Amino acid sequence: MKNQAKRQKDLTVLKGKMSALPVFILVRPQMAENIGMAARAMMNCGVYDLRVVDPRESPFDEKAYAASSGADPILREAKVFSTLKEAIADLNFILATTARPRRLSKPVFKASELHDFFQNTSIPLSKIGVLFGCERTGLENEELECADALLTIPLNPEHTSLNLSQAVLLVGYECLQAINQDQLKAARTPENPLADKADVQMFLDKLNLALTEKGYYRLTDKRPKMQQNLDNIFLKAGLTKQEIQTLHGVLKSLIRPEQKS
Amino acid sequence: MKNQAKRQKDLTVLKGKMSALPVFILVRPQMAENIGMAARAMMNCGVYDLRVVDPRESPFDEKAYAASSGADPILREAKVFSTLKEAIADLNFILATTARPRRLSKPVFKASELHDFFQNTSIPLSKIGVLFGCERTGLENEELECADALLTIPLNPEHTSLNLSQAVLLVGYECLQAINQDQLKAARTPENPLADKADVQMFLDKLNLALTEKGYYRLTDKRPKMQQNLDNIFLKAGLTKQEIQTLHGVLKSLIRPEQKS
Repeated sequence: MKNQAKRQKDLTVLKGKMSALPVFILVRPQMAENIGMAARAMMNCGVYDLRVVDPRESPFDEKAYAASSGADPILREAKVFSTLKEAIADLNFILATTARPRRLSKPVFKASELHDFFQNTSIPLSKIGVLFGCERTGLENEELECADALLTIPLNPEHTSLNLSQAVLLVGYECLQAINQDQLKAARTPENPLADKADVQMFLDKLNLALTEKGYYRLTDKRPKMQQNLDNIFLKAGLTKQEIQTLHGVLKSLIRPEQKS
Repeated sequence: MKNQAKRQKDLTVLKGKMSALPVFILVRPQMAENIGMAARAMMNCGVYDLRVVDPRESPFDEKAYAASSGADPILREAKVFSTLKEAIADLNFILATTARPRRLSKPVFKASELHDFFQNTSIPLSKIGVLFGCERTGLENEELECADALLTIPLNPEHTSLNLSQAVLLVGYECLQAINQDQLKAARTPENPLADKADVQMFLDKLNLALTEKGYYRLTDKRPKMQQNLDNIFLKAGLTKQEIQTLHGVLKSLIRPEQKS
């Protein structure tokens, strides 16, 4: 049993680490036990920020705590969202783990390349989200569309299936190696901060409203697909807050009646 | 279900890999289920040679097969020994995994250093054994004495406890990375070809013409800078040919008079 002082120290460490590593996001996990084992694997790797999207069983279920082998601080602080969009709204860059190569025109990182990526990006690591799909089916294509890049874990091509906590463990391990190898730059204050995903979404909502009013979707039954393709153009661009402002101005100008200068 | 040809191919691959990676040795494992999960983790990493020393439950127990998720070739070929000495008799070099630093005058490797070790040693990798202790107590000191070097897996200092299959997974992963760094490049051939820069520029010219007509640049002396910022948004997005087509359609809709559907 941990005593009070130990628990307090754990929490202090916890707060420090939470600000230094990416957010892990479990998308539609089925069993509380698997969430608990994933939390344990996160704790092993010093990754403390857990989000859960539309889980079938709650991360606060006692089965989750039982399976977590002492990673209950992570479970207690876990945040539950009903949609993936809400879960990533305050993040800047999304990596989606995937076992299979997918037909998507997105950059693909290997887990072992996270080190280089972390070193070279100006994005604070705590603004990076890593998506893990549900145990049986992985991430759906429309969930992958939300991602800026795909993350693969190269394994034996004859036997790639990993359970959720194993995938979390390997990605967490690489994250920890990445920040352990060199002391991570403490301050990452990019000159041009990236827009939060929610800012991008707000622009996209406005764009889609304008397009609807202008009849863009009028003669088609493919609106959801068209809208997704369009969203993707802007979501993957790594837009800054300033650029989103620019796009709002551009949209406002384009939809007004002509007024030559 | 695998068919016969697939199984034959698997076995051929298996034989090839068995000669290329170290032997994993579970010392006094308690539960057959844990042996099965360890076999699964080995299979994930292409490590096929399993030895088990003095197990409480047999690796051939059906609980082991059930937990192995298809790694039964490894379980079927597993060798059981009653003592550690017998298990390592035909090997050249023994690495003992340990979570805690031990008072032993032996070299200590981190798992992430296996790559360098594999590159620099003249010992065939198949003559290297990696010891994993029993689930509860790890390796005894006298078992560690049998080892030529210790192998640590650097993890969150606040929470190092790994279960057996997790330790096997991480060491196996590093072994596989060590031999596979150049062979397992993730497929990077997007199905959707990127737009040529000229295609992007053509869209940008059209966008700028529309903006000029709509008076976007009318009240400013910063047009060149504004235009550059705007171009940048689309140039950095890695847009595909298809996406440029989408943007042309969007622009055409936006600039026409309203026509609600």
